[in-house]
Amino acid sequence: MQIDIITLFPKMFDGPMNESIMWRAQDKKFINLNIVDMRQFGIDERRTVDDKPYGGGAGMILRVDVIDNALKSLNVIHGSPNIKIVVLDAGGEKFTQTKAYDYSKLERLVLICGRYEGIDHRVHENFVDEVISIGDYVLTGGEIPAMVITDAVTRLIPNVIRPESLAEESHSDMESEYPQYTRPENYNGLKVPEVLLTGNHKEIKKWRKN
Amino acid sequence: MQIDIITLFPKMFDGPMNESIMWRAQDKKFINLNIVDMRQFGIDERRTVDDKPYGGGAGMILRVDVIDNALKSLNVIHGSPNIKIVVLDAGGEKFTQTKAYDYSKLERLVLICGRYEGIDHRVHENFVDEVISIGDYVLTGGEIPAMVITDAVTRLIPNVIRPESLAEESHSDMESEYPQYTRPENYNGLKVPEVLLTGNHKEIKKWRKN
Repeated sequence: MQIDIITLFPKMFDGPMNESIMWRAQDKKFINLNIVDMRQFGIDERRTVDDKPYGGGAGMILRVDVIDNALKSLNVIHGSPNIKIVVLDAGGEKFTQTKAYDYSKLERLVLICGRYEGIDHRVHENFVDEVISIGDYVLTGGEIPAMVITDAVTRLIPNVIRPESLAEESHSDMESEYPQYTRPENYNGLKVPEVLLTGNHKEIKKWRKN
Repeated sequence: MQIDIITLFPKMFDGPMNESIMWRAQDKKFINLNIVDMRQFGIDERRTVDDKPYGGGAGMILRVDVIDNALKSLNVIHGSPNIKIVVLDAGGEKFTQTKAYDYSKLERLVLICGRYEGIDHRVHENFVDEVISIGDYVLTGGEIPAMVITDAVTRLIPNVIRPESLAEESHSDMESEYPQYTRPENYNGLKVPEVLLTGNHKEIKKWRKN
């Protein structure tokens, strides 16, 4: 699977994408991560990517032509089969585990990171398949949300993590994950629930269900 | 404000914390970010931090003593005024903008990043103030959620971003953010809504409300 991330802050991805699972997934060719520097599609000699909002307001808005040119450079167009172009936006549809599963089956996922106060709305209306938000909070940009999506999707690609770990998850209802304990059995008087020490698998299963 | 992040992957934070807003906030001393390597609190000569779950199951669980020792090194204890110790966990209370505001008023926020299949539940019950999830999806660890929270909280600290930008936000209902447009006025036939070009502030306000 190919994941393209269009961003004004490519260096933000250096750490997260080169550690742990994400790194292994790239190393083993399960995913190909392509970080695209939006700045190279800036207009004029100063590589401008944004401008003031029509109708007034604080802040700067990312230009539609800049985003369109970035997408053209990737040779992707919205509405293509097995490809999704997604813009990250606090006002978008909520990202969920179901969505992560859907994305993990794609050939290609393109994530556009907004910055500043917003993106020209013609992008939302004409150049993307989905507008996605990772939660009910405001962030400075779409970069960390793009990391969230990349992480959630990557771990669902077959063999990136052990199948047993995936099988145990309750995808639709994460609240139902049971409490986990490991050694030491007694830590300054804080003890592991006794049932877990019995070896009685039936009872343990019952306890975990409750 | 001091933000401590306890993690097994300190390098993941290199990029995100050294770019843009986050970097400026540190540079200007609005926040002091302290990334704590959990590994140094590992037991035995191999610095082990995790072990198999009691009662069986896939994966490894972070040990309670390791987390407790990491917290002790920071000289923080749950239940202290103006300090919150938070463990990131997919099963936790949902992070929201209201929570971001609450956190932005603290003197100190300690974020514990889980990894692998989980954290010994005695941590949740005895060593933290809150268990927080950033959304209904499963990630490989708490590192990216810690970045989400750090970003959301940092931008709310006075003077980190321009007060006008904060004032325009609809905190409680982000869906109501209005569409934004900037130049060019006409991009390959895709036009900016005419009302925004009129200069009629009353009409613009009305349009944006709808």
